[in-house]
Amino acid sequence: MIIDELGISQKIKCVQDTLYVISGKWKLPIMLAISFGNHRFREIQRAVPEITTKVLSKELKDLEANRLVIRKVYDTYPVMIEYSVSPYCKSLKPLIDEMVRWGFNHRLKIKED
Amino acid sequence: MIIDELGISQKIKCVQDTLYVISGKWKLPIMLAISFGNHRFREIQRAVPEITTKVLSKELKDLEANRLVIRKVYDTYPVMIEYSVSPYCKSLKPLIDEMVRWGFNHRLKIKED
Repeated sequence: MIIDELGISQKIKCVQDTLYVISGKWKLPIMLAISFGNHRFREIQRAVPEITTKVLSKELKDLEANRLVIRKVYDTYPVMIEYSVSPYCKSLKPLIDEMVRWGFNHRLKIKED
Repeated sequence: MIIDELGISQKIKCVQDTLYVISGKWKLPIMLAISFGNHRFREIQRAVPEITTKVLSKELKDLEANRLVIRKVYDTYPVMIEYSVSPYCKSLKPLIDEMVRWGFNHRLKIKED
């Protein structure tokens, strides 16, 4: 596979690009919450522990700008807004799965120590 | 597998634990550089673009405290210090590989757009 042929400096650049997109405490948890079926602002906020309204609002705007989250406004009264994950966001699934796995084992390890 | 049986709130906690350990711009690139055979401070600094001496020094201390990097002092003259990755750090390999892969494809995608 082509990835294995990359040199150290290219690998570091790739990792830094990924870190740039998913960096921070909230982006991945928010995408995870949305992909689990939480589409309304309040639902997402309930699903992501400790996030404030202000931070969630800012993070959703960032995710939308990076085309990871899609914001849809329904022309109802009152106006209804729903968030969903983009097909591009779904490409992060193997990465998120691996982070869940590592975090899970890390917690077990810390308990052992 | 047990990971698939976790609920959304547990998955979010696992991801946040992982993010906490690998967060920031430098930790993964530094671990990658060391695992590629750069064991001396100056070698690591050359391998990680744009990192300053001060930041590298601080990050290495953090990584050592989290048992991801091992610092070994050789009783030579002048004293020689070498860094290596711990067995625990190696458990991050599948995650780092996936980040390389995603970052690589992300760069291709950005060029397409």
